Amino acid sequence: MHDLLILSRHAADYQRLIDAARLPQLRLIASSDPHVAAADRFEIVLGEPSLVRSALPRLTGMQWVQSTWAGVEPLLDPSLRRDYILTNARGVFGPQMSEYVFGYMIARERLMFEKYAAQQAGRWDPTPPGALRGKQIGLLGVGSIGAALAATAKHFGMRVKGYTRGSEGCADVDAYFHGDDRIAFANDLDYLVSVMPNTAGTRRLVDAVLLAALPPRAVFINPGRGSVVDERALADALQSGRLAGAVLDVFEQEPLPADHVFWRTPNVLITSHTAALSVPEDIAPVFVDNYRRWTAGEPLRYQVDFEAGY
Amino acid sequence: MHDLLILSRHAADYQRLIDAARLPQLRLIASSDPHVAAADRFEIVLGEPSLVRSALPRLTGMQWVQSTWAGVEPLLDPSLRRDYILTNARGVFGPQMSEYVFGYMIARERLMFEKYAAQQAGRWDPTPPGALRGKQIGLLGVGSIGAALAATAKHFGMRVKGYTRGSEGCADVDAYFHGDDRIAFANDLDYLVSVMPNTAGTRRLVDAVLLAALPPRAVFINPGRGSVVDERALADALQSGRLAGAVLDVFEQEPLPADHVFWRTPNVLITSHTAALSVPEDIAPVFVDNYRRWTAGEPLRYQVDFEAGY
Repeated sequence: MHDLLILSRHAADYQRLIDAARLPQLRLIASSDPHVAAADRFEIVLGEPSLVRSALPRLTGMQWVQSTWAGVEPLLDPSLRRDYILTNARGVFGPQMSEYVFGYMIARERLMFEKYAAQQAGRWDPTPPGALRGKQIGLLGVGSIGAALAATAKHFGMRVKGYTRGSEGCADVDAYFHGDDRIAFANDLDYLVSVMPNTAGTRRLVDAVLLAALPPRAVFINPGRGSVVDERALADALQSGRLAGAVLDVFEQEPLPADHVFWRTPNVLITSHTAALSVPEDIAPVFVDNYRRWTAGEPLRYQVDFEAGY
Repeated sequence: MHDLLILSRHAADYQRLIDAARLPQLRLIASSDPHVAAADRFEIVLGEPSLVRSALPRLTGMQWVQSTWAGVEPLLDPSLRRDYILTNARGVFGPQMSEYVFGYMIARERLMFEKYAAQQAGRWDPTPPGALRGKQIGLLGVGSIGAALAATAKHFGMRVKGYTRGSEGCADVDAYFHGDDRIAFANDLDYLVSVMPNTAGTRRLVDAVLLAALPPRAVFINPGRGSVVDERALADALQSGRLAGAVLDVFEQEPLPADHVFWRTPNVLITSHTAALSVPEDIAPVFVDNYRRWTAGEPLRYQVDFEAGY
């Protein structure tokens, strides 16, 4: 018998979904409170990394944590124990991220906000819109989310550049760049999209140098991690017109502080960390698949490397 | 030698593109003025149907008209001659239409205008957005544009219903409906999209009966033809809350008159006939291909049936 602790704001949803899967040899407790009783008896934990972190000292029997998020920063603090298998949620955020990124790119090409303003003024506005087709997108990071974005970009007839640490596994990327090739990567992009994880290697990768290498018509979209951006440099580029626009979902500090310059920066759209939500219906199948692997003694999918950070 | 008259507001662009194709046995004149000299000598005309109509009585030697538009209504008036081959522009508007339809659907799911209003008020707005994935789209008309929309719908994980006169040729449509099946077609749709041509058979197909068969959460999108819609019935449905919204590109009268009820109807977005523009770079290859067929004595592509109207 395996003891599972579900530790999530959506504990009841997860319990319902996992009960429905009728997994063998599984006994579970579902809670949104990290101060659950008899924490030491749980071998497996499914939950939000922030809640798991709070319970970590008491989860002495824990061997495997399945995160309900893609980002697992709360569990990567070097002061915390790492004597367990940590798996995160992957392969489920691609569709939401595609809708977000391509929806906002089309909104820009189509002058949606400008046309809505014209409508509110009662004005027929036949200004010709632009199109994604034929434009060039640059993906900072080509993991499972980046691959989903690349596929959608190809569907819309775009050219795709990818910047990765070294991997070149996605056939929808037309040209790969690594390491010091940031400038060549940024050259001639219409859209730069960051879906990098938060690691030491990605911190402030989008800095003044990278932004200066983008053409002035470019738009930066960040549904990934706020730590990847030098926010001061980005605000400068936007305010001086060296960058045409930005669509920002994530920030160094969230909620974005009331006095933050982005609230007053022209051509910024702020979407308040809603680009891709962790939905129990998406995540429960990831756990169910991994649980079957666990009981069969097979390697789990989506294992996090504590050193690499993803 | 074949004499071609280019009759278009983009005459110079078409001349440049067709010159570049170095077509054999072709002599051409490019003009934006239907009162061109020696009109009787032209065997072929490439142009906007409205301009061609003005010149029609004088184009006595004309055997073939290649329209630069999809819609050829100006040439379908029963009082006009029909002793020539009329081909229209097809297969080129699908990508633009897909960007329009899916951009506006995502804008709705993502609460783009609501989030922008929150931003302008300096408010962090984490309201969870919706998604296209899992939703159901109904296509009124599944020609080349409808097929392009169906492919994009599948890319985004939607279910697709199609309403046609009889054809069932698109594999991306999950369920087809015809004739009197309008009510079953409308049942449970999240989005209804009209890409019907303007014909006697499609006039006011979107009427009070069809609209009443849609669920109240549904949104109607019309990048096709204004004549397909009973505008009074649509305004009633929107104002009474029996329909959640509409995105309208085309109207019975354009520009939309200043006193039209749609300017004051809640949940309407007006895009001023910009969903798909006739771009010479897209249309010239259609003409070039058909010209090669013409000189080879082969059937032309995209021939319009004057009776059917498309």
